[in-house]
Amino acid sequence: MTVVVSGARPTGRQHLGNYWGALKNWVELQENFQCYFFIADWHSLTTGYEQTAALQEDIREMFLDWLAVGLDPEKSTLFLQSRIPEHAELALLLGMTVPLGWLERNPTYKEQLRELSGREIKTYGFLGYPVLQAADIFLYKAEKVPVGEDQLPHLELAREMARRFAHLYRPVFPEPEALLTPTPKVPGTDARKMSKSYGNAIELAEEEKTLSDKILQMYTDPKKIRAKDKGHPEGCVVFAFHKLYSDYWKRRESECRNGEIGCVACKGDLTRSIEPALRLVREKRRELSGRRNQLEELLEQGCQKARRVARQTLEEVKEAMKLSY
Amino acid sequence: MTVVVSGARPTGRQHLGNYWGALKNWVELQENFQCYFFIADWHSLTTGYEQTAALQEDIREMFLDWLAVGLDPEKSTLFLQSRIPEHAELALLLGMTVPLGWLERNPTYKEQLRELSGREIKTYGFLGYPVLQAADIFLYKAEKVPVGEDQLPHLELAREMARRFAHLYRPVFPEPEALLTPTPKVPGTDARKMSKSYGNAIELAEEEKTLSDKILQMYTDPKKIRAKDKGHPEGCVVFAFHKLYSDYWKRRESECRNGEIGCVACKGDLTRSIEPALRLVREKRRELSGRRNQLEELLEQGCQKARRVARQTLEEVKEAMKLSY
Repeated sequence: MTVVVSGARPTGRQHLGNYWGALKNWVELQENFQCYFFIADWHSLTTGYEQTAALQEDIREMFLDWLAVGLDPEKSTLFLQSRIPEHAELALLLGMTVPLGWLERNPTYKEQLRELSGREIKTYGFLGYPVLQAADIFLYKAEKVPVGEDQLPHLELAREMARRFAHLYRPVFPEPEALLTPTPKVPGTDARKMSKSYGNAIELAEEEKTLSDKILQMYTDPKKIRAKDKGHPEGCVVFAFHKLYSDYWKRRESECRNGEIGCVACKGDLTRSIEPALRLVREKRRELSGRRNQLEELLEQGCQKARRVARQTLEEVKEAMKLSY
Repeated sequence: MTVVVSGARPTGRQHLGNYWGALKNWVELQENFQCYFFIADWHSLTTGYEQTAALQEDIREMFLDWLAVGLDPEKSTLFLQSRIPEHAELALLLGMTVPLGWLERNPTYKEQLRELSGREIKTYGFLGYPVLQAADIFLYKAEKVPVGEDQLPHLELAREMARRFAHLYRPVFPEPEALLTPTPKVPGTDARKMSKSYGNAIELAEEEKTLSDKILQMYTDPKKIRAKDKGHPEGCVVFAFHKLYSDYWKRRESECRNGEIGCVACKGDLTRSIEPALRLVREKRRELSGRRNQLEELLEQGCQKARRVARQTLEEVKEAMKLSY
């Protein structure tokens, strides 16, 4: 079965942006691929090494949401990056072969340097992020990597690293290919990108009451003041979510344009559309969260499964590089 | 007991330059310090990742010479870097905190880039060499590191990394101090620095016949043509070795200056001075080299001893960084 690897930095409780951007896709992928999904705690150090106080809680909360939303340890290998020291070792070995220029020219690196300027972000680890990422992928011999358009340069770097390794020693890893899945842009309640740090997120396990409150505060067409005003669904956050959660979104679009529905009623409808989906997650989450030992056990089992594969690949790497006899 | 850590890249059979530059000092240090001496095979990848064919043999030959010359596994912990994956993991974690500028300004880095230009040497691993080196030192909480003057900048970098780690999280490693040991400059037979790659080296376990041949070819004062010509011992390779091996070197100096001895006789004397020291190494080496399994066992025992300490330190690091709970 084709191997798929993907990971996410631990960001604590997941929100609908995480769901539509990755988790929904992962839950589907696990039906048809041999999937490895990991919590990339070492990756969060590349930009967050100065604040690690909440890291362990963020890991637990994210893992809980992964299970609650349907990632299934029977189908996928779910693990925590830092428990597989082979990721560090392969990153070290790969790094020996990677020309600095490849990393310095990485557009994501340059962009983040600009965005995060002010913080002491220009570290050795931050520059080497694509090397660690390639190691993550190579250890499981991933053939497909689900990525967004913005991550294509990273994947291209990983492919170059695989080719270079094969050229210097012998082929050990396949060149991973992109599994491009179009994902909808999920706006936050204020119409910016949904993000925990913007405070505009709706959690995957949001309570009914706060869900309804957040939906009532959602940004809508500012020109539609009275219920009967004609609205412009494009740019309206409520409508964006109707498209995701309400099977009647097309009808709603014309109702809005024709001034046949007011925003308050439309928001009530949205709450009723989203709530059943979140309730399922919430209930699963509640059920799981009491069983902390079992969660740890599930994570540890995933780690052990991953580690067996990682060890095997690392042995092949060491043989190829003549680091073992 | 004060902890000392030092390592050397595996270069195969050791020569008198290796002996006078490091090994002699290590053999003495092990009497008064808790010493960790390691074969830095990962370090050789920083510049030698393209040619690893002889790596395993170089490791075995060097280890054999270490034992033959008197490094004692009962007194020192002798190990192979790549068998302690904690070195890779700590290097990864440290690297997250190390500003790129520290590495780019490293004078050794800039110098080597110049020296090795032409080869594809400017890699991520090569730039990060001081980070791996700091990890090597920190894992054993070294307080003293035997270094030559030329390596002081690297040690200063390691000290900065220890301070930065303490500042960001909490102190886990002592700031390692230099153990400056003045070492004589050991010329090769052609008067350049003794180096395997120059083909001017005398091996630690050189056979008597080839020792005598090499000494006969040694560079001497080109102005002393006949035995009775007055010589200039400064710059004469034979004299440099008399200073190291002959207790009568002062007398010899004036004999040379006064034209009381010819170069051929002087070279014969030198062979007789060096030969007994090399014979001891040679015999020990011969004795050990038949017992290949035992050698592997000694190395593996050293690795296990080292690994217990490394694991313990890495746990402390992870706790300090909140990477474990």
